[in-house]
Amino acid sequence: MKKVEAIIKPFKLDDVKEKLTALGVKGMTVSEVRGFGRQKGHTEIYRGAEYVVDFLPKIKIEVAVVDNQVPEVVDAIRSAANTGKIGDGKIFIVPLEECIRIRTGEVGEEAL
Amino acid sequence: MKKVEAIIKPFKLDDVKEKLTALGVKGMTVSEVRGFGRQKGHTEIYRGAEYVVDFLPKIKIEVAVVDNQVPEVVDAIRSAANTGKIGDGKIFIVPLEECIRIRTGEVGEEAL
Amino acid sequence: MKKVEAIIKPFKLDDVKEKLTALGVKGMTVSEVRGFGRQKGHTEIYRGAEYVVDFLPKIKIEVAVVDNQVPEVVDAIRSAANTGKIGDGKIFIVPLEECIRIRTGEVGEEAL
Ligand SMILES: Nc1ncnc2c1ncn2[C@@H]1O[C@H](COP(=O)(O)OP(=O)(O)OP(=O)(O)O)[C@@H](O)[C@H]1O
Ligand SMILES: Nc1ncnc2c1ncn2[C@@H]1O[C@H](COP(=O)(O)OP(=O)(O)OP(=O)(O)O)[C@@H](O)[C@H]1O
Ligand SMILES: Nc1ncnc2c1ncn2[C@@H]1O[C@H](COP(=O)(O)OP(=O)(O)OP(=O)(O)O)[C@@H](O)[C@H]1O
Ligand SMILES: [Mg+2]
Ligand SMILES: [Mg+2]
Ligand SMILES: [Mg+2]
Repeated sequence: MKKVEAIIKPFKLDDVKEKLTALGVKGMTVSEVRGFGRQKGHTEIYRGAEYVVDFLPKIKIEVAVVDNQVPEVVDAIRSAANTGKIGDGKIFIVPLEECIRIRTGEVGEEAL
Repeated sequence: MKKVEAIIKPFKLDDVKEKLTALGVKGMTVSEVRGFGRQKGHTEIYRGAEYVVDFLPKIKIEVAVVDNQVPEVVDAIRSAANTGKIGDGKIFIVPLEECIRIRTGEVGEEAL
Repeated sequence: MKKVEAIIKPFKLDDVKEKLTALGVKGMTVSEVRGFGRQKGHTEIYRGAEYVVDFLPKIKIEVAVVDNQVPEVVDAIRSAANTGKIGDGKIFIVPLEECIRIRTGEVGEEAL
């Protein structure tokens, strides 16, 4: 099992969510974060305004999936989140040793 | 060392925190997230109101512990967070390679 | 690749960010969290006021870096975030299996 973490542009959340649910992803967790990438001091467009890239609002998505679903999940996030402009984001893959579904007590891939 | 991450119902935070501190857990980190599980499009009760399960408010808990404390931490979270209703949440176990306590410079299990 | 996660005092974010960018760190992600450490029930100073240490506001920083940059990143965070007072925070090192830069499709260390 892996945890796929993606930092994306906030207005791309709906597209990413739709592509992931279309793949059969069973759950996801989202949080509001701020971040910057390589263009510190350069400008980036956010909601039509130019910002000096200090910390910009981003959305962090976390999706726990079985190993063999990682490539298609990464592709889905990339194709939904990519605008071709700077600041489109990053995807990180973190190992997941165990998953437990609280209500049922199931563990492992059944619990995802 | 492991990082135990749990996504729970917000009103369960106090119960979970009490059970974890009773176990001797030395610290924890909490954040506000939104998420959905398997019942996308079905309804779930939140603060007495019915919601279409799109993204519901959840609390994410992160607790760094020594390996042999993981089972009791998982049990404590499950027993405190379980209502028997859908949406009770998930627990994820992530490997933790190192921990550093900023004030003292301690590392490893001493630093947790 | 590793993900360095640090929980720090909120007013230390600018110092930490400056030290990290001075090191050549290419990006970082920040979120607002709450937490407690060992002094549960004792008091800690936050913005000049005394709080019972229940959950205090903290900032979580996430920085993905190549393995050999971890020691200097940890030192930079420690030296910037350390006040010598309780509550200065923790640094956690989590393994990172892959990184993908959404705009370009680069993977691995190139993508950080
Ligand atoms: N090394 C990193 N560690 C942690 N978070 C990062 C890192 N790099 C980027 N991020 C997060 O991803 C967000 C988007 O990064 P961004 O897409 O600007 O990366 P980039 O490498 O500058 O690529 P681009 O040239 O396409 O802008 C940042 O705002 C930050 O939250
Ligand atoms: N695969 C997943 N990846 C990331 N987060 C998840 C995943 N599954 C669930 N979550 C998070 O956990 C929260 C609670 O999930 P939930 O308890 O509804 O899971 P479930 O599998 O649908 O179980 P139940 O049938 O008991 O509702 C979600 O709102 C989401 O934040
Ligand atoms: N074991 C842990 N698991 C998860 N988060 C933790 C853990 N310990 C500390 N934290 C997070 O780090 C923050 C700061 O912790 P803190 O610096 O008070 O640790 P401490 O061990 O009590 O050290 P000190 O004695 O210097 O206060 C907490 O508010 C919490 O968010
Ligand atoms: Mg960028
Ligand atoms: Mg559910
Ligand atoms: Mg403390």
